[in-house]
Amino acid sequence: MHFADSLTKAITSKSPVCVGLDPALDKLPEGITKDAKGLLNFSTGIIDAVKDVAACVKPQMAYYEALGWEGMRAFWETCAYAKLHGLLVIADGKRNDIGSTCDAYAEAYLYKDSPIDALTVSPYLGSDGVKPFIERCNKNEKGIFVLVKTSNPSSGELQDLPTGDETVHEHMAQLVESWGLHSLGKESGFSAVGAVVGATYPEELKYLRTLLTHAIILIPGFGAQGGTAKDIASGFAGGKGAIVNSSRGIIFASKGKDWQEAASIAAKKMAGELKAVM
Amino acid sequence: MHFADSLTKAITSKSPVCVGLDPALDKLPEGITKDAKGLLNFSTGIIDAVKDVAACVKPQMAYYEALGWEGMRAFWETCAYAKLHGLLVIADGKRNDIGSTCDAYAEAYLYKDSPIDALTVSPYLGSDGVKPFIERCNKNEKGIFVLVKTSNPSSGELQDLPTGDETVHEHMAQLVESWGLHSLGKESGFSAVGAVVGATYPEELKYLRTLLTHAIILIPGFGAQGGTAKDIASGFAGGKGAIVNSSRGIIFASKGKDWQEAASIAAKKMAGELKAVM
Repeated sequence: MHFADSLTKAITSKSPVCVGLDPALDKLPEGITKDAKGLLNFSTGIIDAVKDVAACVKPQMAYYEALGWEGMRAFWETCAYAKLHGLLVIADGKRNDIGSTCDAYAEAYLYKDSPIDALTVSPYLGSDGVKPFIERCNKNEKGIFVLVKTSNPSSGELQDLPTGDETVHEHMAQLVESWGLHSLGKESGFSAVGAVVGATYPEELKYLRTLLTHAIILIPGFGAQGGTAKDIASGFAGGKGAIVNSSRGIIFASKGKDWQEAASIAAKKMAGELKAVM
Repeated sequence: MHFADSLTKAITSKSPVCVGLDPALDKLPEGITKDAKGLLNFSTGIIDAVKDVAACVKPQMAYYEALGWEGMRAFWETCAYAKLHGLLVIADGKRNDIGSTCDAYAEAYLYKDSPIDALTVSPYLGSDGVKPFIERCNKNEKGIFVLVKTSNPSSGELQDLPTGDETVHEHMAQLVESWGLHSLGKESGFSAVGAVVGATYPEELKYLRTLLTHAIILIPGFGAQGGTAKDIASGFAGGKGAIVNSSRGIIFASKGKDWQEAASIAAKKMAGELKAVM
Protein backbone atom coordinates (compact mmCIF):
# COMPACT_ATOMS: atom_id res chain seq x y z
CA MET A 1 0.00 0.00 0.00
CA HIS A 2 1.12 3.61 -0.69
CA PHE A 3 2.93 4.98 2.37
CA ALA A 4 0.60 7.94 2.88
CA ASP A 5 -2.41 5.61 2.68
CA SER A 6 -0.90 3.17 5.20
CA LEU A 7 -0.04 5.98 7.57
CA THR A 8 -3.46 7.62 7.24
CA LYS A 9 -5.10 4.27 7.95
CA ALA A 10 -2.97 3.83 11.08
CA ILE A 11 -3.74 7.37 12.25
CA THR A 12 -7.47 6.76 11.84
CA SER A 13 -7.57 3.27 13.32
CA LYS A 14 -5.11 3.88 16.17
CA SER A 15 -3.93 7.45 16.75
CA PRO A 16 -1.52 10.05 15.35
CA VAL A 17 1.01 9.11 18.04
CA CYS A 18 4.57 8.48 16.83
CA VAL A 19 6.85 7.11 19.54
CA GLY A 20 10.42 8.28 19.19
CA LEU A 21 12.93 5.59 20.07
CA ASP A 22 15.83 7.65 21.42
CA PRO A 23 17.61 5.10 23.61
CA ALA A 24 20.26 7.28 25.21
CA LEU A 25 22.48 4.92 27.21
CA ASP A 26 22.60 7.14 30.28
CA LYS A 27 18.81 7.25 30.54
CA LEU A 28 17.97 3.56 30.11
CA PRO A 29 15.76 2.16 32.87
CA GLU A 30 16.49 -0.41 35.53
CA GLY A 31 17.44 -3.85 34.27
CA ILE A 32 18.61 -2.73 30.81
CA THR A 33 22.30 -3.15 30.03
CA LYS A 34 24.21 -0.24 28.52
CA ASP A 35 25.24 -2.03 25.32
CA ALA A 36 23.81 -3.02 21.94
CA LYS A 37 21.86 -5.89 23.49
CA GLY A 38 20.34 -3.49 26.01
CA LEU A 39 19.42 -1.09 23.20
CA LEU A 40 17.53 -3.86 21.42
CA ASN A 41 15.83 -5.11 24.59
CA PHE A 42 14.73 -1.61 25.48
CA SER A 43 13.53 -0.80 21.94
CA THR A 44 11.51 -3.99 21.58
CA GLY A 45 10.13 -3.55 25.10
CA ILE A 46 8.84 -0.08 24.18
CA ILE A 47 7.38 -1.44 20.93
CA ASP A 48 5.48 -4.09 22.91
CA ALA A 49 4.20 -1.41 25.27
CA VAL A 50 2.92 1.06 22.65
CA LYS A 51 2.01 -1.06 19.61
CA ASP A 52 -1.73 -0.97 20.23
CA VAL A 53 -1.98 2.78 20.53
CA ALA A 54 0.78 4.27 18.31
CA ALA A 55 0.62 4.54 14.51
CA CYS A 56 4.38 4.38 14.17
CA VAL A 57 7.75 4.40 15.85
CA LYS A 58 10.64 6.65 14.94
CA PRO A 59 14.00 5.11 15.85
CA GLN A 60 16.58 7.87 16.11
CA MET A 61 19.60 6.47 14.33
CA ALA A 62 22.20 8.48 16.27
CA TYR A 63 21.64 6.42 19.44
CA TYR A 64 22.18 3.16 17.58
CA GLU A 65 25.13 4.48 15.57
CA ALA A 66 26.71 5.54 18.86
CA LEU A 67 27.38 1.83 19.50
CA GLY A 68 29.11 1.26 16.16
CA TRP A 69 28.14 -1.63 13.93
CA GLU A 70 26.70 -3.62 16.83
CA GLY A 71 24.39 -0.66 17.46
CA MET A 72 23.42 -0.66 13.78
CA ARG A 73 22.54 -4.32 14.03
CA ALA A 74 20.28 -3.47 16.99
CA PHE A 75 18.77 -0.68 14.87
CA TRP A 76 17.86 -3.03 12.01
CA GLU A 77 16.52 -5.65 14.42
CA THR A 78 14.43 -2.96 16.11
CA CYS A 79 12.94 -1.88 12.78
CA ALA A 80 12.12 -5.47 11.83
CA TYR A 81 10.50 -6.08 15.23
CA ALA A 82 8.33 -2.97 14.94
CA LYS A 83 7.25 -3.90 11.43
CA LEU A 84 6.39 -7.43 12.55
CA HIS A 85 4.18 -6.00 15.27
CA GLY A 86 2.15 -3.82 12.95
CA LEU A 87 3.83 -0.48 13.45
CA LEU A 88 5.02 1.77 10.64
CA VAL A 89 8.71 2.60 10.96
CA ILE A 90 10.17 6.04 10.32
CA ALA A 91 13.97 5.94 10.49
CA ASP A 92 15.13 9.30 11.81
CA GLY A 93 18.49 9.67 10.11
CA LYS A 94 18.18 13.12 8.48
CA ARG A 95 20.23 11.70 5.61
CA ASN A 96 21.29 13.92 2.74
CA ASP A 97 23.69 13.69 -0.16
CA ILE A 98 23.78 14.04 -3.95
CA GLY A 99 23.84 11.92 -7.09
CA SER A 100 24.99 8.35 -6.74
CA THR A 101 25.65 8.83 -3.02
CA CYS A 102 22.08 9.93 -2.41
CA ASP A 103 21.05 6.91 -4.42
CA ALA A 104 23.07 4.71 -2.07
CA TYR A 105 21.30 6.16 0.99
CA ALA A 106 17.92 5.69 -0.68
CA GLU A 107 18.72 2.08 -1.51
CA ALA A 108 20.19 1.50 1.95
CA TYR A 109 16.97 2.37 3.77
CA LEU A 110 14.06 2.38 1.31
CA TYR A 111 14.65 -0.81 -0.67
CA LYS A 112 11.62 -2.90 -1.53
CA ASP A 113 11.49 -5.29 1.42
CA SER A 114 13.05 -2.93 3.95
CA PRO A 115 11.44 -2.97 7.41
CA ILE A 116 11.71 0.81 7.21
CA ASP A 117 8.69 2.64 5.76
CA ALA A 118 10.05 6.15 5.71
CA LEU A 119 13.21 8.16 6.33
CA THR A 120 13.78 11.73 7.48
CA VAL A 121 15.80 13.85 5.02
CA SER A 122 17.69 17.15 5.42
CA PRO A 123 17.19 19.52 2.46
CA TYR A 124 20.25 21.80 2.37
CA LEU A 125 21.42 20.30 -0.95
CA GLY A 126 18.23 21.03 -2.89
CA SER A 127 16.33 18.61 -5.08
CA ASP A 128 19.45 16.56 -6.02
CA GLY A 129 19.45 15.43 -2.41
CA VAL A 130 15.77 14.45 -2.41
CA LYS A 131 14.83 13.01 -5.80
CA PRO A 132 16.60 9.64 -5.42
CA PHE A 133 14.57 9.12 -2.24
CA ILE A 134 11.33 10.05 -4.03
CA GLU A 135 12.12 7.50 -6.76
CA ARG A 136 12.20 4.80 -4.06
CA CYS A 137 8.99 6.19 -2.54
CA ASN A 138 7.23 5.73 -5.88
CA LYS A 139 8.80 2.40 -6.74
CA ASN A 140 8.74 0.72 -3.33
CA GLU A 141 5.75 2.34 -1.56
CA LYS A 142 7.96 4.21 0.89
CA GLY A 143 7.94 7.74 2.30
CA ILE A 144 10.21 10.58 3.37
CA PHE A 145 9.85 13.51 5.74
CA VAL A 146 11.85 16.56 4.73
CA LEU A 147 12.97 19.04 7.40
CA VAL A 148 11.10 22.32 6.96
CA LYS A 149 10.84 24.13 10.32
CA THR A 150 12.52 22.19 13.10
CA SER A 151 11.61 22.26 16.79
CA ASN A 152 14.93 23.46 18.24
CA PRO A 153 15.66 26.98 19.58
CA SER A 154 18.23 27.83 16.89
CA SER A 155 16.18 26.56 13.93
CA GLY A 156 15.55 30.15 12.86
CA GLU A 157 19.22 30.94 12.25
CA LEU A 158 18.86 29.52 8.76
CA GLN A 159 15.20 28.54 8.43
CA ASP A 160 13.73 31.96 9.33
CA LEU A 161 16.01 34.05 7.11
CA PRO A 162 13.88 36.35 4.96
CA THR A 163 14.11 35.74 1.23
CA GLY A 164 11.89 38.04 -0.79
CA ASP A 165 8.39 37.99 0.68
CA GLU A 166 8.84 34.76 2.56
CA THR A 167 11.20 32.93 4.89
CA VAL A 168 13.55 30.10 3.95
CA HIS A 169 11.28 27.56 5.69
CA GLU A 170 8.21 28.83 3.82
CA HIS A 171 10.13 28.53 0.57
CA MET A 172 11.20 25.02 1.58
CA ALA A 173 7.59 24.07 2.35
CA GLN A 174 6.60 25.01 -1.18
CA LEU A 175 9.45 22.93 -2.61
CA VAL A 176 8.38 19.95 -0.49
CA GLU A 177 4.78 20.34 -1.64
CA SER A 178 5.88 20.46 -5.29
CA TRP A 179 8.27 17.49 -4.91
CA GLY A 180 5.39 15.37 -3.63
CA LEU A 181 2.71 16.17 -6.19
CA HIS A 182 3.47 13.09 -8.30
CA SER A 183 3.50 10.78 -5.29
CA LEU A 184 -0.07 10.98 -4.00
CA GLY A 185 -1.84 8.07 -2.33
CA LYS A 186 -5.07 7.14 -4.10
CA GLU A 187 -7.03 6.55 -0.91
CA SER A 188 -5.78 9.32 1.33
CA GLY A 189 -4.86 11.98 -1.22
CA PHE A 190 -1.73 12.67 0.80
CA SER A 191 1.78 12.52 -0.60
CA ALA A 192 4.66 10.14 0.15
CA VAL A 193 6.77 13.28 0.59
CA GLY A 194 6.06 14.65 4.05
CA ALA A 195 7.42 17.57 6.04
CA VAL A 196 8.88 18.03 9.51
CA VAL A 197 7.50 21.02 11.43
CA GLY A 198 8.13 21.38 15.17
CA ALA A 199 5.34 21.56 17.77
CA THR A 200 7.33 24.33 19.42
CA TYR A 201 6.41 26.78 16.63
CA PRO A 202 2.57 26.70 16.57
CA GLU A 203 2.13 29.90 14.51
CA GLU A 204 4.48 28.67 11.82
CA LEU A 205 2.80 25.25 11.88
CA LYS A 206 -0.60 26.84 11.26
CA TYR A 207 0.67 28.78 8.25
CA LEU A 208 2.76 25.93 6.86
CA ARG A 209 -0.30 23.67 6.91
CA THR A 210 -1.80 26.01 4.28
CA LEU A 211 1.28 25.69 2.06
CA LEU A 212 1.62 21.93 2.55
CA THR A 213 -1.70 20.93 1.04
CA HIS A 214 -0.71 17.32 0.31
CA ALA A 215 2.12 16.66 2.75
CA ILE A 216 1.72 14.68 5.93
CA ILE A 217 3.41 16.67 8.67
CA LEU A 218 5.64 14.93 11.19
CA ILE A 219 5.48 17.10 14.29
CA PRO A 220 8.28 16.58 16.81
CA GLY A 221 8.71 18.57 20.00
CA PHE A 222 5.63 17.33 21.85
CA GLY A 223 6.02 16.79 25.58
CA ALA A 224 9.58 17.09 26.88
CA GLN A 225 10.45 19.84 24.34
CA GLY A 226 7.41 21.89 25.40
CA GLY A 227 4.80 21.39 22.66
CA THR A 228 1.20 20.76 23.79
CA ALA A 229 -1.85 19.22 22.06
CA LYS A 230 -3.25 22.72 21.60
CA ASP A 231 -0.03 23.81 19.87
CA ILE A 232 -0.27 21.11 17.24
CA ALA A 233 -4.03 21.20 16.57
CA SER A 234 -3.59 23.30 13.43
CA GLY A 235 -1.18 20.75 11.98
CA PHE A 236 -4.09 18.45 11.16
CA ALA A 237 -6.21 18.71 8.04
CA GLY A 238 -9.67 17.31 8.69
CA GLY A 239 -8.38 15.12 11.51
CA LYS A 240 -5.68 13.66 9.30
CA GLY A 241 -2.39 14.58 7.69
CA ALA A 242 -0.20 14.75 10.77
CA ILE A 243 1.68 12.52 13.15
CA VAL A 244 2.98 13.78 16.44
CA ASN A 245 6.19 12.50 17.93
CA SER A 246 7.06 12.17 21.58
CA SER A 247 10.27 10.48 22.65
CA ARG A 248 11.43 11.08 26.21
CA GLY A 249 7.91 11.72 27.55
CA ILE A 250 6.95 8.15 26.65
CA ILE A 251 10.05 5.99 26.59
CA PHE A 252 11.52 7.40 29.78
CA ALA A 253 8.22 7.87 31.60
CA SER A 254 9.70 5.69 34.32
CA LYS A 255 13.28 4.65 35.03
CA GLY A 256 12.07 1.91 37.37
CA LYS A 257 10.97 -1.64 36.73
CA ASP A 258 7.57 -0.39 35.53
CA TRP A 259 9.08 1.38 32.46
CA GLN A 260 6.96 -0.57 29.98
CA GLU A 261 3.72 0.03 31.85
CA ALA A 262 4.61 3.71 32.26
CA ALA A 263 5.36 4.03 28.52
CA SER A 264 2.03 2.44 27.66
CA ILE A 265 0.14 4.79 29.98
CA ALA A 266 2.00 7.84 28.64
CA ALA A 267 1.28 6.87 25.00
CA LYS A 268 -2.43 6.36 25.77
CA LYS A 269 -2.59 9.70 27.58
CA MET A 270 -0.96 11.43 24.60
CA ALA A 271 -3.33 9.73 22.13
CA GLY A 272 -6.30 10.94 24.20
CA GLU A 273 -4.99 14.51 24.28
CA LEU A 274 -4.42 14.50 20.51
CA LYS A 275 -7.79 13.01 19.67
CA ALA A 276 -9.44 15.82 21.61
CA VAL A 277 -7.92 18.45 19.29
CA MET A 278 -7.77 16.70 15.91
CA MET B 1 47.54 17.46 17.85
CA HIS B 2 44.79 19.97 16.92
CA PHE B 3 42.93 18.73 13.82
CA ALA B 4 43.65 21.83 11.71
CA ASP B 5 47.34 21.59 12.61
CA SER B 6 47.48 17.88 11.71
CA LEU B 7 45.72 18.48 8.43
CA THR B 8 47.88 21.47 7.54
CA LYS B 9 50.99 19.40 8.27
CA ALA B 10 49.73 16.61 5.98
CA ILE B 11 48.87 19.09 3.20
CA THR B 12 52.37 20.57 3.39
CA SER B 13 54.28 17.31 3.70
CA LYS B 14 52.19 15.30 1.21
CA SER B 15 49.55 17.16 -0.81
CA PRO B 16 46.05 18.63 -0.48
CA VAL B 17 44.61 15.48 -2.06
CA CYS B 18 41.66 13.90 -0.28
CA VAL B 19 40.64 10.55 -1.72
CA GLY B 20 36.92 9.92 -1.51
CA LEU B 21 36.10 6.31 -0.73
CA ASP B 22 32.76 5.87 -2.52
CA PRO B 23 32.68 2.11 -3.03
CA ALA B 24 29.53 1.74 -5.12
CA LEU B 25 28.93 -2.00 -5.49
CA ASP B 26 28.16 -1.81 -9.21
CA LYS B 27 31.47 -0.06 -9.94
CA LEU B 28 33.89 -2.25 -7.98
CA PRO B 29 36.83 -3.54 -10.03
CA GLU B 30 37.73 -7.04 -11.07
CA GLY B 31 38.37 -9.48 -8.25
CA ILE B 32 36.38 -7.59 -5.59
CA THR B 33 33.26 -9.27 -4.24
CA LYS B 34 30.04 -7.26 -4.03
CA ASP B 35 29.59 -7.63 -0.27
CA ALA B 36 30.87 -6.14 2.98
CA LYS B 37 34.13 -8.09 2.72
CA GLY B 38 34.62 -6.74 -0.81
CA LEU B 39 33.96 -3.21 0.44
CA LEU B 40 36.68 -3.58 3.04
CA ASN B 41 39.15 -5.20 0.63
CA PHE B 42 38.58 -2.45 -1.91
CA SER B 43 38.81 0.35 0.66
CA THR B 44 42.03 -0.94 2.20
CA GLY B 45 43.46 -1.57 -1.27
CA ILE B 46 42.84 2.06 -2.23
CA ILE B 47 44.35 3.23 1.07
CA ASP B 48 47.52 1.21 0.33
CA ALA B 49 47.67 2.75 -3.13
CA VAL B 50 47.30 6.41 -2.13
CA LYS B 51 48.71 6.63 1.40
CA ASP B 52 52.03 8.19 0.35
CA VAL B 53 50.51 10.99 -1.68
CA ALA B 54 47.14 11.82 -0.09
CA ALA B 55 46.65 13.85 3.08
CA CYS B 56 43.41 12.14 3.91
CA VAL B 57 40.65 9.79 2.87
CA LYS B 58 36.95 10.56 2.99
CA PRO B 59 34.87 7.40 3.32
CA GLN B 60 31.36 8.14 2.13
CA MET B 61 29.14 6.49 4.72
CA ALA B 62 26.16 5.88 2.40
CA TYR B 63 28.00 3.13 0.51
CA TYR B 64 28.85 1.29 3.72
CA GLU B 65 25.39 1.83 5.26
CA ALA B 66 23.94 0.34 2.07
CA LEU B 67 25.18 -3.03 3.31
CA GLY B 68 23.52 -2.73 6.72
CA TRP B 69 25.44 -3.43 9.90
CA GLU B 70 28.01 -5.57 8.10
CA GLY B 71 28.70 -2.57 5.89
CA MET B 72 29.11 -0.40 8.99
CA ARG B 73 31.63 -2.86 10.35
CA ALA B 74 33.57 -2.53 7.08
CA PHE B 75 33.30 1.26 7.46
CA TRP B 76 34.85 1.26 10.94
CA GLU B 77 37.54 -1.19 9.88
CA THR B 78 38.33 1.02 6.87
CA CYS B 79 38.70 4.07 9.12
CA ALA B 80 40.97 2.18 11.51
CA TYR B 81 43.13 0.92 8.61
CA ALA B 82 43.52 4.42 7.15
CA LYS B 83 44.46 5.83 10.53
CA LEU B 84 47.03 3.07 11.08
CA HIS B 85 48.62 3.93 7.74
CA GLY B 86 49.08 7.59 8.52
CA LEU B 87 46.07 9.08 6.74
CA LEU B 88 43.65 11.50 8.31
CA VAL B 89 40.07 10.26 8.11
CA ILE B 90 37.08 12.46 7.26
CA ALA B 91 33.84 10.52 7.63
CA ASP B 92 31.42 11.89 5.06
CA GLY B 93 28.08 11.37 6.79
CA LYS B 94 26.54 14.86 6.60
CA ARG B 95 25.05 14.17 10.02
CA ASN B 96 22.74 16.67 11.65
CA ASP B 97 20.38 16.73 14.60
CA ILE B 98 19.67 18.67 17.77
CA GLY B 99 20.25 18.53 21.50
CA SER B 100 20.95 15.14 23.02
CA THR B 101 20.60 13.45 19.61
CA CYS B 102 23.29 15.67 18.11
CA ASP B 103 25.35 14.83 21.15
CA ALA B 104 24.90 11.13 20.37
CA TYR B 105 26.15 11.63 16.79
CA ALA B 106 29.12 13.64 18.04
CA GLU B 107 30.02 10.95 20.54
CA ALA B 108 29.44 8.21 17.95
CA TYR B 109 32.07 9.54 15.56
CA LEU B 110 34.30 12.06 17.34
CA TYR B 111 35.04 10.30 20.64
CA LYS B 112 38.57 10.54 21.98
CA ASP B 113 40.18 7.46 20.48
CA SER B 114 38.02 7.32 17.36
CA PRO B 115 39.86 6.45 14.14
CA ILE B 116 37.81 9.26 12.59
CA ASP B 117 39.43 12.71 12.66
CA ALA B 118 36.57 14.75 11.24
CA LEU B 119 32.95 14.48 10.16
CA THR B 120 30.91 16.37 7.57
CA VAL B 121 27.85 18.14 8.99
CA SER B 122 24.70 19.54 7.37
CA PRO B 123 23.64 22.93 8.79
CA TYR B 124 19.88 23.25 8.20
CA LEU B 125 19.16 23.09 11.96
CA GLY B 126 21.36 26.05 12.92
CA SER B 127 23.89 26.14 15.74
CA ASP B 128 22.02 23.56 17.89
CA GLY B 129 23.00 21.04 15.25
CA VAL B 130 26.65 22.05 15.25
CA LYS B 131 27.75 22.97 18.78
CA PRO B 132 27.84 19.42 20.21
CA PHE B 133 30.25 18.53 17.41
CA ILE B 134 32.42 21.57 18.14
CA GLU B 135 32.59 20.54 21.81
CA ARG B 136 34.12 17.23 20.71
CA CYS B 137 36.48 19.08 18.34
CA ASN B 138 37.80 21.11 21.24
CA LYS B 139 37.91 18.28 23.75
CA ASN B 140 39.17 15.46 21.52
CA GLU B 141 41.23 17.25 18.85
CA LYS B 142 38.72 16.49 16.11
CA GLY B 143 37.26 18.52 13.24
CA ILE B 144 34.06 19.07 11.28
CA PHE B 145 33.31 20.35 7.78
CA VAL B 146 29.99 22.17 7.50
CA LEU B 147 28.17 22.26 4.15
CA VAL B 148 28.21 25.82 2.78
CA LYS B 149 28.02 25.73 -1.03
CA THR B 150 27.80 22.20 -2.36
CA SER B 151 29.02 20.98 -5.75
CA ASN B 152 25.73 19.65 -7.17
CA PRO B 153 23.61 21.34 -9.88
CA SER B 154 20.61 22.00 -7.58
CA SER B 155 22.64 23.38 -4.66
CA GLY B 156 21.37 26.87 -5.46
CA GLU B 157 17.70 26.02 -4.82
CA LEU B 158 18.27 26.74 -1.15
CA GLN B 159 21.89 27.89 -0.88
CA ASP B 160 21.67 30.73 -3.43
CA LEU B 161 18.43 32.24 -2.15
CA PRO B 162 18.95 35.96 -1.60
CA THR B 163 18.55 37.12 1.97
CA GLY B 164 19.17 40.84 2.38
CA ASP B 165 22.46 41.77 0.69
CA GLU B 166 23.78 38.24 0.60
CA THR B 167 22.88 34.67 -0.29
CA VAL B 168 22.04 31.88 2.13
CA HIS B 169 25.43 30.25 1.49
CA GLU B 170 27.29 33.50 2.17
CA HIS B 171 25.35 33.88 5.40
CA MET B 172 26.19 30.28 6.26
CA ALA B 173 29.89 30.90 5.59
CA GLN B 174 29.87 33.71 8.13
CA LEU B 175 28.18 31.49 10.69
CA VAL B 176 30.78 28.76 10.08
CA GLU B 177 33.60 31.27 10.45
CA SER B 178 32.12 32.54 13.74
CA TRP B 179 31.49 29.02 15.09
CA GLY B 180 35.16 28.18 14.60
CA LEU B 181 36.82 31.21 16.14
CA HIS B 182 37.35 29.54 19.51
CA SER B 183 38.77 26.39 17.94
CA LEU B 184 41.96 27.61 16.28
CA GLY B 185 45.08 25.48 15.94
CA LYS B 186 48.13 27.12 17.53
CA GLU B 187 50.50 26.12 14.75
CA SER B 188 48.39 26.59 11.65
CA GLY B 189 46.01 29.34 12.76
CA PHE B 190 43.20 27.45 11.07
CA SER B 191 40.04 26.32 12.81
CA ALA B 192 38.73 22.83 13.60
CA VAL B 193 35.46 24.01 12.03
CA GLY B 194 35.87 23.77 8.27
CA ALA B 195 33.55 24.41 5.34
CA VAL B 196 32.49 22.46 2.26
CA VAL B 197 32.53 24.45 -0.98
CA GLY B 198 32.28 22.71 -4.36
CA ALA B 199 34.96 22.94 -7.07
CA THR B 200 32.11 23.32 -9.55
CA TYR B 201 31.42 26.88 -8.34
CA PRO B 202 34.81 28.66 -8.73
CA GLU B 203 33.44 32.23 -8.47
CA GLU B 204 31.62 31.43 -5.24
CA LEU B 205 34.71 29.63 -3.91
CA LYS B 206 36.85 32.71 -4.53
CA TYR B 207 34.47 34.98 -2.62
CA LEU B 208 33.79 32.48 0.17
CA ARG B 209 37.56 32.21 0.80
CA THR B 210 37.43 35.89 1.83
CA LEU B 211 34.61 35.22 4.31
CA LEU B 212 36.13 32.00 5.65
CA THR B 213 39.32 33.52 7.04
CA HIS B 214 40.06 30.68 9.47
CA ALA B 215 38.20 27.73 7.98
CA ILE B 216 39.88 24.96 6.06
CA ILE B 217 37.80 24.39 2.94
CA LEU B 218 36.98 20.87 1.83
CA ILE B 219 36.50 21.12 -1.94
CA PRO B 220 34.60 18.26 -3.54
CA GLY B 221 33.69 18.07 -7.22
CA PHE B 222 37.21 17.74 -8.65
CA GLY B 223 37.57 15.41 -11.63
CA ALA B 224 34.49 13.36 -12.46
CA GLN B 225 32.13 16.18 -11.40
CA GLY B 226 33.94 18.66 -13.63
CA GLY B 227 36.11 20.80 -11.33
CA THR B 228 39.70 21.49 -12.47
CA ALA B 229 42.86 22.54 -10.63
CA LYS B 230 42.40 26.07 -11.99
CA ASP B 231 38.85 26.17 -10.60
CA ILE B 232 39.98 25.46 -7.08
CA ALA B 233 43.15 27.61 -7.01
CA SER B 234 41.40 30.44 -5.18
CA GLY B 235 40.31 28.07 -2.40
CA PHE B 236 43.83 28.06 -0.99
CA ALA B 237 45.18 30.72 1.36
CA GLY B 238 48.95 31.02 1.03
CA GLY B 239 49.19 27.47 -0.29
CA LYS B 240 47.24 26.10 2.67
CA GLY B 241 43.73 25.99 4.06
CA ALA B 242 42.12 23.65 1.55
CA ILE B 243 41.83 19.99 0.71
CA VAL B 244 40.50 18.81 -2.60
CA ASN B 245 38.47 15.65 -2.91
CA SER B 246 38.31 13.30 -5.84
CA SER B 247 36.45 10.02 -5.61
CA ARG B 248 35.60 8.26 -8.88
CA GLY B 249 38.54 9.79 -10.78
CA ILE B 250 40.93 7.98 -8.44
CA ILE B 251 39.23 4.93 -6.99
CA PHE B 252 37.68 3.83 -10.28
CA ALA B 253 40.60 4.89 -12.50
CA SER B 254 40.66 1.29 -13.69
CA LYS B 255 38.12 -1.48 -13.37
CA GLY B 256 40.75 -4.08 -14.31
CA LYS B 257 43.29 -5.93 -12.20
CA ASP B 258 45.52 -2.84 -12.16
CA TRP B 259 43.01 -0.78 -10.11
CA GLN B 260 45.48 -0.10 -7.29
CA GLU B 261 48.25 0.99 -9.61
CA ALA B 262 45.80 3.15 -11.58
CA ALA B 263 44.51 4.77 -8.36
CA SER B 264 48.06 5.53 -7.28
CA ILE B 265 48.90 7.12 -10.64
CA ALA B 266 45.66 9.16 -10.63
CA ALA B 267 46.31 10.43 -7.10
CA LYS B 268 49.87 11.45 -7.98
CA LYS B 269 48.68 13.21 -11.14
CA MET B 270 46.07 15.11 -9.14
CA ALA B 271 48.64 16.09 -6.48
CA GLY B 272 50.91 17.43 -9.23
CA GLU B 273 48.11 19.48 -10.78
CA LEU B 274 47.14 20.94 -7.41
CA LYS B 275 50.69 21.79 -6.37
CA ALA B 276 51.07 23.78 -9.60
CA VAL B 277 48.20 26.12 -8.60
CA MET B 278 48.47 26.29 -4.79
